[in-house]
Amino acid sequence: MNMHSNQQQKPLVEVCYSPFLYDQYKDVHDIVVVIDVLRATSAMCIALHYGAKSIIPVSSIEDAKSYDAEKYILAAERNGEVVEGFSYGNSPRSYMGDDIKGKEIVLTTTNGTKTINIAADSEILVIGSLLNLDALSEWLIQQKKNVLLLCSGWKDKFNLEDTICAGAIAHNLIQTGEFHSEEDSSIAAKYLYLSARDNIFGYLKSSSHRRRLKRLNLNEDVKFCLIPNQTEVIPILKEGKLVRLE
Amino acid sequence: MNMHSNQQQKPLVEVCYSPFLYDQYKDVHDIVVVIDVLRATSAMCIALHYGAKSIIPVSSIEDAKSYDAEKYILAAERNGEVVEGFSYGNSPRSYMGDDIKGKEIVLTTTNGTKTINIAADSEILVIGSLLNLDALSEWLIQQKKNVLLLCSGWKDKFNLEDTICAGAIAHNLIQTGEFHSEEDSSIAAKYLYLSARDNIFGYLKSSSHRRRLKRLNLNEDVKFCLIPNQTEVIPILKEGKLVRLE
Repeated sequence: MNMHSNQQQKPLVEVCYSPFLYDQYKDVHDIVVVIDVLRATSAMCIALHYGAKSIIPVSSIEDAKSYDAEKYILAAERNGEVVEGFSYGNSPRSYMGDDIKGKEIVLTTTNGTKTINIAADSEILVIGSLLNLDALSEWLIQQKKNVLLLCSGWKDKFNLEDTICAGAIAHNLIQTGEFHSEEDSSIAAKYLYLSARDNIFGYLKSSSHRRRLKRLNLNEDVKFCLIPNQTEVIPILKEGKLVRLE
Repeated sequence: MNMHSNQQQKPLVEVCYSPFLYDQYKDVHDIVVVIDVLRATSAMCIALHYGAKSIIPVSSIEDAKSYDAEKYILAAERNGEVVEGFSYGNSPRSYMGDDIKGKEIVLTTTNGTKTINIAADSEILVIGSLLNLDALSEWLIQQKKNVLLLCSGWKDKFNLEDTICAGAIAHNLIQTGEFHSEEDSSIAAKYLYLSARDNIFGYLKSSSHRRRLKRLNLNEDVKFCLIPNQTEVIPILKEGKLVRLE
């Protein structure tokens, strides 16, 4: 527990809109939740749910290529597309088969894995998405620690889908009466979630990333990632690898 | 007109949440609108409305002190309070008297004047607040140029009141059918404005800056700054001074 929570009694839950802003918020938390709804952190939840042993997040394509392709599943996405020379990207629907059971996946994505590595120095780092929304919220509530919800955004900028997911988690924590927010970014994220929650897909209609993925014929992926509570898996970073929190 | 508007035909209106993010958005615009609702840009609109000749925005208290106090009105605010040794801060209600008529005001504030100076290299820089919302929107619509709505935020962070004001301006421009937004930050600002507009004071109840100003007994200032369309004055930066756009 840091200074903030001692002063205020209740632990904080705050929202940071992009990894570019992480330094402004990093002293606030004991637990950081990395969010990249479309699609990296959704894919991570699903891969561990369907039996992958671990996911190794790496920042660059070169890092991913340096792993032995016989031993690991190598996956890379940039700008919404699978990188040439790789068989896997960040579509959650590609991590549901027998091919990934018991395997270690080395993954690099445009935003999500970069964000994880920026926050890798935090005491506890877990992965959030709409897919594990309630399970993650319940676990965070039990911890009674300061929580920073770190959105991956799009190339260091604010994005709407990660903010709505962060707002959903913040809302779940706040409504217990056991957490509070100080930052306007957190208050706005909650407001955005509350106005989006009855139709998240519709709400994101004009968002930049939904338009981008639609152009790439990935609308089915978008729909899948926006359906809350498909798994109770919470990926947690242990010695550089994301594994299931047990 | 830059690349963006040529591609898309319609000019852009985008929202940047803080001066810290200005570099991410600066190539988008022909006109930048600096917004600091509580209270710097509200005070600027009011001072020019009540007959001040100009406002010279300076970044530091030292800069403000370097001006001749016999010749100029010197004003400084930090963390919501008038700086010691100054008679004026950034309360709009202190710029309504005969004492400021025909005068030049040298002003430094925590966020607003810093933001103006960061964006002073832009082709056209004007000042926005809720107080001049419709007059400013109408003028921007007539220009048919790319617009960046630059929120001053709070110490480089996102704040709710500037974002709502930016969302209001964006909404006014978009609904003409003559402008469009590409960025999720702009879409979110519009959503926040639409859910706030029926009761902006209530919507900001839990915002960090309203709490801060309430502690300083400045609730009347807050109420004043949140009443839209009290003036048609549009301050514009000309050779380092804010003057009335004629």
